[in-house]
Amino acid sequence: MINKEKNKKKYSVGIDFGTLSCRAAVVDLETGEEKSGVESVYAHGVMTEKLEYGATLGKDYAIQDPRDYIEGLSAIKKAVEAAGIEPNDIVGLGVDFTSSTVLALDEEGMPLSFKEEYKNDPHAYAKLWKHHGAAKETELITKMAVERNESFLSRYGGAVSSEWMIPKILETFNYSPKAYESASRFSEGGDFITRFLTGGDNCSIGGAGFKTFWNEKDGYPSTEYFRSLNEEFGNTVTDKLCHTLTKPCEKAGLLNSRGALITGLPEGLPVASFVLDAHAGMPACGITSSGELLMIMGTSTVLIASCEEYRDIPGICGIVKDGIVPGLYSLETGQSCTGDLYDWVVSNCVTEKYFAEAEERGISIHALLCEKCADKKPGETGLVALDWWNGNRSILQRADVSGMILGMTLETKPEDIYRAALEATAFGSRIVYENLLKNGMEINKITASGGIPQKNPLLMQIYCDVFNAPISVSSVKQPGAYGSALYGAVAGGYFENITEAAKINGRNISRTYYPNEENARTYNELFNEYVLLHDYFGRGANECMRRLREISEKAKKI
Amino acid sequence: MINKEKNKKKYSVGIDFGTLSCRAAVVDLETGEEKSGVESVYAHGVMTEKLEYGATLGKDYAIQDPRDYIEGLSAIKKAVEAAGIEPNDIVGLGVDFTSSTVLALDEEGMPLSFKEEYKNDPHAYAKLWKHHGAAKETELITKMAVERNESFLSRYGGAVSSEWMIPKILETFNYSPKAYESASRFSEGGDFITRFLTGGDNCSIGGAGFKTFWNEKDGYPSTEYFRSLNEEFGNTVTDKLCHTLTKPCEKAGLLNSRGALITGLPEGLPVASFVLDAHAGMPACGITSSGELLMIMGTSTVLIASCEEYRDIPGICGIVKDGIVPGLYSLETGQSCTGDLYDWVVSNCVTEKYFAEAEERGISIHALLCEKCADKKPGETGLVALDWWNGNRSILQRADVSGMILGMTLETKPEDIYRAALEATAFGSRIVYENLLKNGMEINKITASGGIPQKNPLLMQIYCDVFNAPISVSSVKQPGAYGSALYGAVAGGYFENITEAAKINGRNISRTYYPNEENARTYNELFNEYVLLHDYFGRGANECMRRLREISEKAKKI
Repeated sequence: MINKEKNKKKYSVGIDFGTLSCRAAVVDLETGEEKSGVESVYAHGVMTEKLEYGATLGKDYAIQDPRDYIEGLSAIKKAVEAAGIEPNDIVGLGVDFTSSTVLALDEEGMPLSFKEEYKNDPHAYAKLWKHHGAAKETELITKMAVERNESFLSRYGGAVSSEWMIPKILETFNYSPKAYESASRFSEGGDFITRFLTGGDNCSIGGAGFKTFWNEKDGYPSTEYFRSLNEEFGNTVTDKLCHTLTKPCEKAGLLNSRGALITGLPEGLPVASFVLDAHAGMPACGITSSGELLMIMGTSTVLIASCEEYRDIPGICGIVKDGIVPGLYSLETGQSCTGDLYDWVVSNCVTEKYFAEAEERGISIHALLCEKCADKKPGETGLVALDWWNGNRSILQRADVSGMILGMTLETKPEDIYRAALEATAFGSRIVYENLLKNGMEINKITASGGIPQKNPLLMQIYCDVFNAPISVSSVKQPGAYGSALYGAVAGGYFENITEAAKINGRNISRTYYPNEENARTYNELFNEYVLLHDYFGRGANECMRRLREISEKAKKI
Repeated sequence: MINKEKNKKKYSVGIDFGTLSCRAAVVDLETGEEKSGVESVYAHGVMTEKLEYGATLGKDYAIQDPRDYIEGLSAIKKAVEAAGIEPNDIVGLGVDFTSSTVLALDEEGMPLSFKEEYKNDPHAYAKLWKHHGAAKETELITKMAVERNESFLSRYGGAVSSEWMIPKILETFNYSPKAYESASRFSEGGDFITRFLTGGDNCSIGGAGFKTFWNEKDGYPSTEYFRSLNEEFGNTVTDKLCHTLTKPCEKAGLLNSRGALITGLPEGLPVASFVLDAHAGMPACGITSSGELLMIMGTSTVLIASCEEYRDIPGICGIVKDGIVPGLYSLETGQSCTGDLYDWVVSNCVTEKYFAEAEERGISIHALLCEKCADKKPGETGLVALDWWNGNRSILQRADVSGMILGMTLETKPEDIYRAALEATAFGSRIVYENLLKNGMEINKITASGGIPQKNPLLMQIYCDVFNAPISVSSVKQPGAYGSALYGAVAGGYFENITEAAKINGRNISRTYYPNEENARTYNELFNEYVLLHDYFGRGANECMRRLREISEKAKKI
């Protein structure tokens, strides 16, 4: 343990790799204060149409250039400078990363895309979490898992997402056999970063457990299962996946000279095993025990909770021992569309006069719409919507469903549709929440984190009335980088464990919302309508959403 | 018969009383040419909040001042002047009127609202067709008709609309007993006009048959039935409804001196019995026999057809012998929302950049949206909508259902929603059309009339592909006034009958659309989805639309 008594402030650094940029933060480990935060935007962004060297990308591709991640590490140096502290007073570095972002690495741990011969092969680059090129592979992976009664399936709510690791590797196997052959390791973006910084070839339980079907009892699925996907695919698990697993808070290694040069941090600094980006929000919001639900609300919503014992819960995205908090089973579940839906309404259903009014009054268009619908009573709009503009992640796990709004009359206004969108995501979250309760999870406290909850009191009151439970909003500005810094501090030995570390911010609740009894009653009625429609369109009674997607795909091909 | 040989052109005048104005037209009976058309806008418009003298109007009221109708008659004088013809060369005058527009008249046939003591009583004014103050009364009227097994009900598809005559009279009975007592006659607006012009106290079969439960076999419902609504209400049918019925083409009377003064037409000119506004479109489009369907597409759509024998057809708005064409049974059915829906999309779901582009290019916003969605294949938007923004008139006859759009993704654009709206009204019309076929109607030809079909070729091709049948678009600009002039010409003796009269315009088809086989196939698939949703939400499987309306009403009252 580091001696905290020597009357000198100590700091930790966290770096959070998101979809379009990474952000580094320096945290004062005595006060919990975020001393600085620096963002580095990826120069290549998300490539969806073609690579820099000309290769055309397939439908639903989302490729990134790993050089952007390495350049992004310089944000750490800037954050330390901005904080005005001594690098030697930093006790550890933590990393979180969007997931599953999959890279094919060579024997040195460098991306194949760095080699001349692969610079025009998308499969040699990073496949971002939202790369959806492996739909066919995902189907096969699920089908064979069901046929072979593979035990891992139930830990993922019974379905596999094309966003995960194995579908993306199988896609590379099918479409770029050469890159597949050359790859010494398929790696999460986060594991790539810690390896780049330390040289340690290991793999975090968070990534392996939530995205690669690994668990502490059985490890990865068997070679036989991988061979059932393709006779030649069996060696993926034996040769190309990492079998040295590290828990969160454990060291991935010590900062090497290359890492020290780029980050400006001292060589030999402990670097924590990476965690999934949303998961870093748990300690950032002070949550490290069972019985609490964290909703991280952004473009989509991630809901995370922990429990003492393993539970089979349908419709979740994974339950992993030691996945977030060592010693606990943590589970992740979520909604594919939250802020994205509000933005869709603004971009498609709001006429000029609203924008003009917002501009004149110097407020955001979202704030204006909230103001216009804030006086309405629950149910007054007469609308109910299904929030499936981006499919349904939990609890239906269906990418082939779509959005719906019902109840329009000639009197319906844009602010009514906007409010229906807010309510729809709240209903969607309540279904996820109730699914957890129904399957034995104990939840005594709900915390919401992210920019949307901090900015939108109407939305949070709606969520609270829909849940009929108090909801606290965390004031943490950058939960990813902040939480990573806490993991780094534990890895660096400053705290005994993540629970101790998470105490420093004293939970920083900016506001707690309490339900209005009457609103909750009305929302209960509306939620019943939502559930009826959810089950009718989502559970097979009327598969029109799937059929409409098929008809549309066919029409586009003509 | 008037001697057509004397080498002098003859003319007829029609006047069409609409919702916001009336229009007079002069028609050359030799060439069919519309020589002139003059509009007179009602000074008081539609009163929905209060009367000129201060009385506050109830929810869903739509009141008009009958003085506006009388002033509107001056449009005839202007039209004759504009046509540059001799009034003495006019052979007859025809009148059509929106219906059921109900007036309480005194013994002279003048509106009670003209009297000082009634000038602040809304029930003494005209209740416009879309006055919906009689919801409670309509429920009772239907309930008692069902209980007593009244035979009239089946002629109206099994349901009564609050837009019709008896509900509006019963409302007056309930809310203004004094006006009810004083009224010597409750009259359609059209019968009021012909009486004002001629002094003849008679009543057209069109109004009585389509809106007042009258038929040629049983007359009006019995006094017992009226007494079942209220013990004191029995004398409505015996004393306050007109029992001198006139067929279309028959004379309501001859122009009296007062009428001659206002219209500038010669005293003694034959004035035809009034027809319902949409019905005048039938001869205007050259349709006077069975086997044809006329769709009059405006803010809503009216579908009209005739047959040789009486048929019980569920979901229609009335079937009446001699109602439109003497000798035939004619039926009316319709959709509550067509152009209104397209306008709703434009007013609520279209962002500024579209309006800016339309303005820059000097085209209408509707034309721009059509252009943007014209290249899409059927089904490509992935959307399907239920066109019930204004309830469902046919075939469900439910005011308590509402609009729905389904299939949205984050890629959905305003032009997709616009196209879904066009398709939804086409699907709604196809259900009405198929309901007629299913119930034994023979339909060999479909004609569309109104401003929308003339202006929107994309829409008409969609209708045609959805119906999988050719659709002809009539070029008649003012079908109401034009058709009325034809009825006037028959009443004036210039033509033998309405079929002869209707031949003069040679049908004036501006364009006939033919179905594209492949589009028709895809639309068949989409129509099946529409029907599934139509039946699910409209026929009791999930009454969420009704419940959402109830919740909304309750919320508004708090």
